[in-house]
Amino acid sequence: MELTGQNLIGGTPAGGGAAFRAVDPASGATLKPEFREGDAALADRALAAAEAAFPAYARTTPGVRATFLRAIADELLALGQPLLERAHAETGLPGARLESERTRTVNQLRLFAAHIEEGSWVEARIDPGDPGRAPPKPDIRRMLVPLGPVAVFAASNFPFAFSVAGGDTASALAAGCPVVCKAHPGHPGTSELVARAVYRAADRGSISTGVFSLLHGWGHEVGLALVRHPLTRAVGFTGSLRAGRALFDAGAARPDPIPVYAEMGSVNPVFLLPSAVAERWETIAQGLAQSITLGVGQYCTSPGVVLGVGGPDFDRLVRALGERLRGAPAGVMLYDRLSEAYAAGIARARSRGAELLAATPAPPAAGPTCGAPALLATDAAHFLADPALREEVFGPSSLVVKASDVAELVRVAEALEGQLTASIHGTAAELDVHAPLVEALQRKVGRLIFNGFPTGVEVGHAMQHGGPYPATTDARTTSVGTAAIVRFARPVCWQDFPDAALPAALRNHNVLGIWRRVNGAITREDVASGV
Amino acid sequence: MELTGQNLIGGTPAGGGAAFRAVDPASGATLKPEFREGDAALADRALAAAEAAFPAYARTTPGVRATFLRAIADELLALGQPLLERAHAETGLPGARLESERTRTVNQLRLFAAHIEEGSWVEARIDPGDPGRAPPKPDIRRMLVPLGPVAVFAASNFPFAFSVAGGDTASALAAGCPVVCKAHPGHPGTSELVARAVYRAADRGSISTGVFSLLHGWGHEVGLALVRHPLTRAVGFTGSLRAGRALFDAGAARPDPIPVYAEMGSVNPVFLLPSAVAERWETIAQGLAQSITLGVGQYCTSPGVVLGVGGPDFDRLVRALGERLRGAPAGVMLYDRLSEAYAAGIARARSRGAELLAATPAPPAAGPTCGAPALLATDAAHFLADPALREEVFGPSSLVVKASDVAELVRVAEALEGQLTASIHGTAAELDVHAPLVEALQRKVGRLIFNGFPTGVEVGHAMQHGGPYPATTDARTTSVGTAAIVRFARPVCWQDFPDAALPAALRNHNVLGIWRRVNGAITREDVASGV
Repeated sequence: MELTGQNLIGGTPAGGGAAFRAVDPASGATLKPEFREGDAALADRALAAAEAAFPAYARTTPGVRATFLRAIADELLALGQPLLERAHAETGLPGARLESERTRTVNQLRLFAAHIEEGSWVEARIDPGDPGRAPPKPDIRRMLVPLGPVAVFAASNFPFAFSVAGGDTASALAAGCPVVCKAHPGHPGTSELVARAVYRAADRGSISTGVFSLLHGWGHEVGLALVRHPLTRAVGFTGSLRAGRALFDAGAARPDPIPVYAEMGSVNPVFLLPSAVAERWETIAQGLAQSITLGVGQYCTSPGVVLGVGGPDFDRLVRALGERLRGAPAGVMLYDRLSEAYAAGIARARSRGAELLAATPAPPAAGPTCGAPALLATDAAHFLADPALREEVFGPSSLVVKASDVAELVRVAEALEGQLTASIHGTAAELDVHAPLVEALQRKVGRLIFNGFPTGVEVGHAMQHGGPYPATTDARTTSVGTAAIVRFARPVCWQDFPDAALPAALRNHNVLGIWRRVNGAITREDVASGV
Repeated sequence: MELTGQNLIGGTPAGGGAAFRAVDPASGATLKPEFREGDAALADRALAAAEAAFPAYARTTPGVRATFLRAIADELLALGQPLLERAHAETGLPGARLESERTRTVNQLRLFAAHIEEGSWVEARIDPGDPGRAPPKPDIRRMLVPLGPVAVFAASNFPFAFSVAGGDTASALAAGCPVVCKAHPGHPGTSELVARAVYRAADRGSISTGVFSLLHGWGHEVGLALVRHPLTRAVGFTGSLRAGRALFDAGAARPDPIPVYAEMGSVNPVFLLPSAVAERWETIAQGLAQSITLGVGQYCTSPGVVLGVGGPDFDRLVRALGERLRGAPAGVMLYDRLSEAYAAGIARARSRGAELLAATPAPPAAGPTCGAPALLATDAAHFLADPALREEVFGPSSLVVKASDVAELVRVAEALEGQLTASIHGTAAELDVHAPLVEALQRKVGRLIFNGFPTGVEVGHAMQHGGPYPATTDARTTSVGTAAIVRFARPVCWQDFPDAALPAALRNHNVLGIWRRVNGAITREDVASGV
């Protein structure tokens, strides 16, 4: 398990530019070995390898790709404790959290394997011809095909699930697209270990290692080179608004624009309706405190704003929440820039008039990456008037917003920017009475949660992890769940092709057993031959 | 049927700026009345009306929207002969062509009505919860919801099917989105007549007329104002590469980028394989001549390039094609800028060394908008070396490209930009032997045609009218066929909502009878209640 520190082009170590090292955020110690920054020349080589591997990889059967994805999952597990230890050293994330994140990543790979084996995701549509019509009606058959090489940008806060073999890579590989992954420089060693698991899986499945490359670096050069490269067909990204928007702009400004799927986080407002607050203020406060401090607040679904109608019940809830946060431990954040930005975000909110209700004192020997829970407060009028109060503060804090009535909560909902999630706590009767609030929130979010908390993103078929800008750059897509696969495909139709020359999914005999839309009706039946 | 010449904001005449008139391209005569240019202020009013109408319109049942779409179709037909006469006067298109285009437009509206009544297009997905899992598994349900107000830019060459109540408007209204339509200034009277048919249909269905507005103008101001307006959620466009790219860039540069679906045409290469040429050179020449001259070549699917392997058979085919084009009549093009650009395109190809094989002499009294069929020729080496030869020439001409062998045809295919279509003429055996050609073309196009011609776009479920840039700005979508509806929707998921508070499509009891993905399996069964 010796780390090379090199960029990996289709499995081959390929050197690189300036050296950098991972840092243990708990101790500040630098870790071995040295890693080498990727650059535009390496991006070019990685994309040439991806393009060379694409035609054969696109032609593989769903079964072959499913076996590949499952082999990646197995190889990830086979890395065992050393992988978890390296990830802990590079990120400061606790072992139990990393273990469950690895499980999630493994399950995600297996879910995509099952999804492409089931096969209906290609959205096959068949409109049989009719030579007797005047003019003759052609035979038209349509399905999704893979886009081509995809650039994936790994996130800092999920070293497995949103990184090298995370959701973007899994869905692109499942669709039939090679991946060039830009590792997050916060965990380069973890990234190399996972990349080598991908290569071992490719070897086991006799798949060209050209379908995967790993590039390192803190600098912008390699990332922009990946987005601007003529062979890149799509981009997946999870990270900050600033970086995501820069990549989106680079993708849109190309001579041939490409889709850039950037998931950039949000404040995930939690709306508390009066009856729920009266009935359950204590359990809501407890759930909020857990959700706010989970993973030292380093989730894009962390609840950054808590809104309710002022009054004794709400005051009780806010007091209870403040007490719980004051009692919660400070934690090690992923790297120093993040903890600095967290502190700056709290200072900014205070400078705009937010009151600091509660703050955990930093422990005596706190390192530079310590993030301490905090609770701030303002009222709806200030929150509505000052966009600075609506900006995301990445870390274990939340801003309480007190409104005078539910109508004011609706106005706040209408003023929000796009969000990954919004949560509503209420009774079923309140949900009914306050339909305008639900409707206002539906326009702003990808996921609406009732009597729950936004952290914890279930990986399944129905998950929508996305939302209107600035939560993401493409509200039509999700980066979690099986629907993520369609981001890396596009429709092609075949007109009047002989049955034998069609892709298997479109032939008369439904050999794959998939659901298809035939003459507009969804069915698994064969199409009458001789059409 | 008196035309007002005014912009129409939610059905109300609303004045406008500078006056302009439609021109009869056959005679050069200006037509009454005067129309008034839209501007940014009118765009703002139209979008405010659309936004005000959106919540109620988005809540309408599929049945109500289907009735609305069918009423638009009926009102279009009820406009009768005067509509066809006005369209003929404004576009020069023959009556029979306009009548069949109106039929297509009516059928398209009815097809979307049936599609939303069938209802499965919302892609409902249900992952039932499991309170017994540790941690408890939430109940997640996901479906597509309408985006909000959509700006539609009408095309010059289809005054019905790609204009005011054409495919973009029909699919946006079907999805539940209000439409602000920028009329094409080449046929403003036709546009007003159709807009008033939309309003009559809205009145019949008790739908707010705010769901539709019509803005006129030749200038860029109103179009850019529509794309840049904060309330606009998506844009549909059919027209030139230059205009489409400008709108795409404006959409991407917004503070909150929005999707701009621009369909911008292509050269639609037709590849002729040797056995097909030997066996069917005469019928292929006949079919090509018809396809090239159809509608005076004013289709985005017009075959602009014909490629084959040099030799006596191919020479025979090209000679026969030249003779047919020489014998084909010149026609009236839509407006003078278009016929000027057509002449300039032929001159440009000739200046780059293309040989003029055949040209129809313009008739003695040809007006300024006359477009005469022409056939040009070059060889594959020149075609590969000179991008200027690969540019679209909009009109009834085509460029013959002679290759030395099929391998050279494959290299040409690989060098092509994105296309709406590519056609292959060959035997079934050739299709098999020359799989690399098919594969190369598949990467470039939205639609592959075997032994047919690209003109004639079937409106159905399986049609893919789109393709990689520069054919369109979003290869993941189609602007023709029922799949066009998803351009104007995005997914939302509901977590742990009470059954009664869910949209009808997601409730346990499948009251709409739609196909849903439940726990990953596609079914029309109910979901067990009490989950």
